[in-house]
Amino acid sequence: MDVLTVITENYLKRFLEIRDQTEALCRPLLPEDTVVQPMVDVSPPKWHLAHTSWFFETFILQKYAPDYTVFHPEYNYLFNSYYNSIGSRIMRQTRGTLTRPPIEEIYRYRAYVNENVADLLNQLTDNILIEMLPIFELGLQHEQQHQELLVTDIKYILSTNPLTPALLPAEKYVSPETSLPKPEYLPVAAGLYEIGYTGTDFCFDNELSVHQVWLDEFAFRNQLVTNGEFLEFIEAGGYQNFKYWLHEGFELAKQEHWEAPLYWTKHTDGWYRFTWHGLQKVNLNAPVTHISFYEADAFANWAGKRLLTEFEWEVANQQYATNRKAGNFLENGYFDPQPFSKNQVNANQFLGDVWEWTYSAYQPYPRYNKAEGALGEYNGKFMINQMVLRGGSCATPRSHIRPTYRNFFHPDKRWQFTGIRLATK
Amino acid sequence: MDVLTVITENYLKRFLEIRDQTEALCRPLLPEDTVVQPMVDVSPPKWHLAHTSWFFETFILQKYAPDYTVFHPEYNYLFNSYYNSIGSRIMRQTRGTLTRPPIEEIYRYRAYVNENVADLLNQLTDNILIEMLPIFELGLQHEQQHQELLVTDIKYILSTNPLTPALLPAEKYVSPETSLPKPEYLPVAAGLYEIGYTGTDFCFDNELSVHQVWLDEFAFRNQLVTNGEFLEFIEAGGYQNFKYWLHEGFELAKQEHWEAPLYWTKHTDGWYRFTWHGLQKVNLNAPVTHISFYEADAFANWAGKRLLTEFEWEVANQQYATNRKAGNFLENGYFDPQPFSKNQVNANQFLGDVWEWTYSAYQPYPRYNKAEGALGEYNGKFMINQMVLRGGSCATPRSHIRPTYRNFFHPDKRWQFTGIRLATK
Amino acid sequence: MDVLTVITENYLKRFLEIRDQTEALCRPLLPEDTVVQPMVDVSPPKWHLAHTSWFFETFILQKYAPDYTVFHPEYNYLFNSYYNSIGSRIMRQTRGTLTRPPIEEIYRYRAYVNENVADLLNQLTDNILIEMLPIFELGLQHEQQHQELLVTDIKYILSTNPLTPALLPAEKYVSPETSLPKPEYLPVAAGLYEIGYTGTDFCFDNELSVHQVWLDEFAFRNQLVTNGEFLEFIEAGGYQNFKYWLHEGFELAKQEHWEAPLYWTKHTDGWYRFTWHGLQKVNLNAPVTHISFYEADAFANWAGKRLLTEFEWEVANQQYATNRKAGNFLENGYFDPQPFSKNQVNANQFLGDVWEWTYSAYQPYPRYNKAEGALGEYNGKFMINQMVLRGGSCATPRSHIRPTYRNFFHPDKRWQFTGIRLATK
Amino acid sequence: MDVLTVITENYLKRFLEIRDQTEALCRPLLPEDTVVQPMVDVSPPKWHLAHTSWFFETFILQKYAPDYTVFHPEYNYLFNSYYNSIGSRIMRQTRGTLTRPPIEEIYRYRAYVNENVADLLNQLTDNILIEMLPIFELGLQHEQQHQELLVTDIKYILSTNPLTPALLPAEKYVSPETSLPKPEYLPVAAGLYEIGYTGTDFCFDNELSVHQVWLDEFAFRNQLVTNGEFLEFIEAGGYQNFKYWLHEGFELAKQEHWEAPLYWTKHTDGWYRFTWHGLQKVNLNAPVTHISFYEADAFANWAGKRLLTEFEWEVANQQYATNRKAGNFLENGYFDPQPFSKNQVNANQFLGDVWEWTYSAYQPYPRYNKAEGALGEYNGKFMINQMVLRGGSCATPRSHIRPTYRNFFHPDKRWQFTGIRLATK
Ligand SMILES: [Fe+3]
Ligand SMILES: [Fe+3]
Ligand SMILES: [Fe+3]
Ligand SMILES: [Fe+3]
Repeated sequence: MDVLTVITENYLKRFLEIRDQTEALCRPLLPEDTVVQPMVDVSPPKWHLAHTSWFFETFILQKYAPDYTVFHPEYNYLFNSYYNSIGSRIMRQTRGTLTRPPIEEIYRYRAYVNENVADLLNQLTDNILIEMLPIFELGLQHEQQHQELLVTDIKYILSTNPLTPALLPAEKYVSPETSLPKPEYLPVAAGLYEIGYTGTDFCFDNELSVHQVWLDEFAFRNQLVTNGEFLEFIEAGGYQNFKYWLHEGFELAKQEHWEAPLYWTKHTDGWYRFTWHGLQKVNLNAPVTHISFYEADAFANWAGKRLLTEFEWEVANQQYATNRKAGNFLENGYFDPQPFSKNQVNANQFLGDVWEWTYSAYQPYPRYNKAEGALGEYNGKFMINQMVLRGGSCATPRSHIRPTYRNFFHPDKRWQFTGIRLATK
Repeated sequence: MDVLTVITENYLKRFLEIRDQTEALCRPLLPEDTVVQPMVDVSPPKWHLAHTSWFFETFILQKYAPDYTVFHPEYNYLFNSYYNSIGSRIMRQTRGTLTRPPIEEIYRYRAYVNENVADLLNQLTDNILIEMLPIFELGLQHEQQHQELLVTDIKYILSTNPLTPALLPAEKYVSPETSLPKPEYLPVAAGLYEIGYTGTDFCFDNELSVHQVWLDEFAFRNQLVTNGEFLEFIEAGGYQNFKYWLHEGFELAKQEHWEAPLYWTKHTDGWYRFTWHGLQKVNLNAPVTHISFYEADAFANWAGKRLLTEFEWEVANQQYATNRKAGNFLENGYFDPQPFSKNQVNANQFLGDVWEWTYSAYQPYPRYNKAEGALGEYNGKFMINQMVLRGGSCATPRSHIRPTYRNFFHPDKRWQFTGIRLATK
Repeated sequence: MDVLTVITENYLKRFLEIRDQTEALCRPLLPEDTVVQPMVDVSPPKWHLAHTSWFFETFILQKYAPDYTVFHPEYNYLFNSYYNSIGSRIMRQTRGTLTRPPIEEIYRYRAYVNENVADLLNQLTDNILIEMLPIFELGLQHEQQHQELLVTDIKYILSTNPLTPALLPAEKYVSPETSLPKPEYLPVAAGLYEIGYTGTDFCFDNELSVHQVWLDEFAFRNQLVTNGEFLEFIEAGGYQNFKYWLHEGFELAKQEHWEAPLYWTKHTDGWYRFTWHGLQKVNLNAPVTHISFYEADAFANWAGKRLLTEFEWEVANQQYATNRKAGNFLENGYFDPQPFSKNQVNANQFLGDVWEWTYSAYQPYPRYNKAEGALGEYNGKFMINQMVLRGGSCATPRSHIRPTYRNFFHPDKRWQFTGIRLATK
Repeated sequence: MDVLTVITENYLKRFLEIRDQTEALCRPLLPEDTVVQPMVDVSPPKWHLAHTSWFFETFILQKYAPDYTVFHPEYNYLFNSYYNSIGSRIMRQTRGTLTRPPIEEIYRYRAYVNENVADLLNQLTDNILIEMLPIFELGLQHEQQHQELLVTDIKYILSTNPLTPALLPAEKYVSPETSLPKPEYLPVAAGLYEIGYTGTDFCFDNELSVHQVWLDEFAFRNQLVTNGEFLEFIEAGGYQNFKYWLHEGFELAKQEHWEAPLYWTKHTDGWYRFTWHGLQKVNLNAPVTHISFYEADAFANWAGKRLLTEFEWEVANQQYATNRKAGNFLENGYFDPQPFSKNQVNANQFLGDVWEWTYSAYQPYPRYNKAEGALGEYNGKFMINQMVLRGGSCATPRSHIRPTYRNFFHPDKRWQFTGIRLATK
């Protein structure tokens, strides 16, 4: 077999696996579940399923597949997310009223795109392949990002239902109430460090250019903050005491009546959390999640500690991470962070479980280069008012994450699997 | 057969017919269509299907059926509309995020209620029957009201979709472009008239007490205002000229960019309307519909005429209506008003086609008596800020309407089949 | 002296008295008080002072005074209230940011208009006088309406200040805690009655045409509802019990946390009210005021009574009012309603004290004729979503009120001197 | 004279000069101008005058002056800005309805505080002085910050007035239309640089700790972006082309209909700007100002350049600034930025004229220490969602600014004197 064939066969295999994974996440859903949008940040699962296909249709098939006919002429209008270069689109907040096309048609759309992509890969010339591959790779990464969003959006959609439906059997969820070892603070020496992606595989444009930063000496905790620790903060009146909070966070918490992380509810026998496995008792040893940056920062202040910057996080990972791919990811199927284990291969809980809020605003690295055309709208235009998160979560596909990966959300967002790592002042 | 048996058999037959009719309206829907709520006035079809069953469960089965077990303990919370007496309920604006229970379960809920009602009717004693019948009758009327809402809400839900899906085949819709006879103004003499329901069948509490009103001489037009006439108003700049408008209406029209009735869109070859039969060319001879009270009033002023009061309407109907039950109703299956026909049995277009806005605020009649308990929340508590509409529409069940029937909506509402009848100044 | 001279001299005298009265109301104000707008219904006093002058400038001087030069070319833009015919204007909600022109210049504006009106009156011919007088009269009535608004708007402006400043000396306010006679219900027989203004003096267009209404027998209470009675409603949980309330009223009361009339605050030693005379203990015998239509209606339901319609009110007044002009009006200087007195000349508290909410929506009388041009925008365009109030208040100029006078406000408004009269069911 | 006397005399002199300066800025105002709040970011001048006095009263007089009696017991509630430690306060958005206390009383309040501070300074012991001085110094710096806000807030208040009043004579404003030298880009070499305040005078806690940053090589423009250059951006359709913009900025610009900097209006003979000297023709050579971060960033992208980070700015200033105190500041009395001049002592326009937006989010420096108690609420709690600006403006007091000074505003704010300095990519 020639190199071209090997490459395209590998790509086709990955493509089909990723496409299947997306659909597997939606398998427990009813048609009704796929269509609603209970808050503006959440997209209907049907929309995710279609939009990821639209991405391949628009950036791959329409560009590289000879005589390709789009599945439906209106889908560009319906399933474009935010690419101004690609034309007008429905308003984001009206995604949840699109009852048509029905979910069955969207699955046909996916199959149609899959077949055409397979055909295309089988007939590529070297030249075209070289031009196309970076965009194709981006399509795969993009679909994996939407897998994570499917986990969090489906959870949110079902959480608003008074019936608290469980999508997965409760037995799978329950982890033993193990005792945790005492957390340690691990030191990093002052110095000039290199930041950004230096490998040869895929990375996003926002992980570049590679550049140096000077860091002062610091230490970070080897375990994430747990539900039990966060409960102490709650019970100590942490939500009511302004002195731990950023001003905008405190005002928001009052206005929204935040008194615990998202999905927590207090019953007569204690706190419960809504999960993919239904309503479950809060596991005190598991990492706290579904908290805003404001709550993460307030907790750190209350504890007399602070959050890491994204640069400190990356260097700590450089120095201490061992088995980078061994965390609790999407493929584990928990869809919830798990307690720290001394013996776990992913020491220090760096990757997986929860995205760790850093005290770094999402800004361009030095010599950041936005791509030309539509793909230039992927990252750069969001570099304001958001905070960087590092490490991936229990909803991130294992093959999608890297230590240099920069996720970003507004500091008030809570529906992602976000958590807290402490550093010493 | 004894009287009791005859009565209960008749009621059971009506009950089952009405229950079937409700489901028949939802038959063309996909599960996805049944769940969304694109604006707060609209309820998801699934909700209508469940709420009408909840009404029988709550007010009939739980009260009169011995040992009745509710279908699901949470349904009272989910499907109570606004009865404070019956307990708390979900917020109206969140009806459209309830993906569970799925539509299939709601159909099982309906069947369960139907069976239990049938059982109950077969075992009633005289005493219980006499006590129960008024409430049972109200349940039937209530379900018919929700049939009308299903027609208008389903239309609205599909209208927000850029794909403009058609639920019914387009052929059924198209009515011939007949020429219309010249409209006439029919006179009513001044005098003291009796208003309110005087029959022995069912009527709502708001149609009572029967009382007298003094009316001055007036005349009303025997035909409803047509799309063609309304188009003249549009083309004459009617939407832009404040002098025809109530102040709040003009401000609203500017703010909402109203330039035509709801569902009208202008294409290069003229105006189209969204209907149950898809996007259709505006039929100039059909009655204009989906207009607010503000637009109805502005049109009347522009035409140098005025709207009727609800009392004038009722007396005009007393004097001129011939075959009251022969209009264009839900059962006709057009779900759209039809052009006036000289030979039609329903002369003067009084009943059916469109609800006619009157210039009468919805207020209690003299000696109005609100029922005790939950049923007292049916009508009386809405007697503010709404205008009375008369005559029923193409979405009203034929057996549901009466000339004394008082429908009511806020003056800005447009998603009902509302229309215009003119009177001389 | 000829008739023309007598007429113009009388008019000039009234004009100057009314203009002075307006300024007298503003005399206790600081420049700062004249400029702010703490809610959209309230206008800054400076704006009232200017707008009433603009009215004479626009509708009298510019039309009838030869070679009249406007005081300032921008004032039409700044001080037009809602007359679309007269051109564009600042948004209502931005009236409170107009720091310039300063109040001193507005007083010069008033003097300039006064002088020019005096000059004009002295040089009129018969023909012009006849044409002009109705509009001139409207200008006077208009200014009196704004006097009432000055009383209520100034009160509101000062009420939002944590310092609770008193504009008038507290001694003037306190009325003795007299005991009240037992209220009586006075009967009116069923019959055909005449409604509307039949005199030869000024009335607004909305008091016409004179027409007949049929009324059933009813009875009304000879005393207004008192603070003491309303306090019983509060203490009986009236604000929390949905069954007394219109639906929209109950939702609003919850949302706005209404638990007492506007301006009431509870201290450790009981309830206080903010008044023109500072914070004062609630006088249990004085009529309750600053309540919305919703609260008036809820109180009536709680008391097992109802409100009158505007037609019942007018006929009750026809039959029972004695000395129509002897109530507690603006000129009395209390700026607050006073307790009922058996011996008072204004038996039955018909005129003055508080505007009485009726259960009649503000709608046109039969054969209502809107004036041509700008003056046609005075009344007619507001005939939607408002309720009629009758009788005038402690802020109404004595010479301004008539029994046929129809005031109107939205049912949620509370900053006017509004109150409650009960009728039997 | 002993050292203590010298120190206190110097401080008293500075105190009185600064207090006078504040009042001098308000001298052209009418009482009406001092009270309104046309948008939530703007505070009424009266409030600034009182709040700066409250600061000395609360943090100095109440703590250090024996037997000090507060001027008014309610002022803590009225004039506390955001210090939760000091108790409750009026809502920020209601500052503009406080007509009382009148401006005259606020001037008495200021005199009272001044006298008491003078007395206190004259009777201090060494020990107390040492403890008090840092807070006293903060009070002076705080009052200077509010001087800048007075310049910008007064401008905004008058700008909303259709009469476009001028507070200062127009002659003072007009600067000659000189021709500008060609801008140059000045290089800074890569290296490890020291950031933060290293002097011995006052600085804010957010300028510390002094720490190192690694910078790559870059170059910055020696002149600010001018109105003429910005006009090219406007005329090239810059406001309409998404590709230059951050996503949130572009959406905001559309929603707010931004088509030019704040205060610009287009007349038939070209663009005008509202200034303290009334409406003036746009000077094409003067630095552009009153633009948001979004506009600054979009302009830089359009020009093929970028903004500096705050660290680059500080190092550029270290290397190139000459006479740091010679810029166009508050004391110059222009209240508007002036054109670049080759011969000007303040080469490179570093300090004064406009605050330069940097592409650095406002975050804590390493080892940042928040003060204990109320003063800890001064800076730290605002370190989210804001961008750093450097260099001071034409509204900044000369003695208040330093190169290490970190100002911060949300990226959408335009009412401050904000501007643009470019760097090479
Ligand atoms: Fe996407
Ligand atoms: Fe219902
Ligand atoms: Fe007016
Ligand atoms: Fe301050």
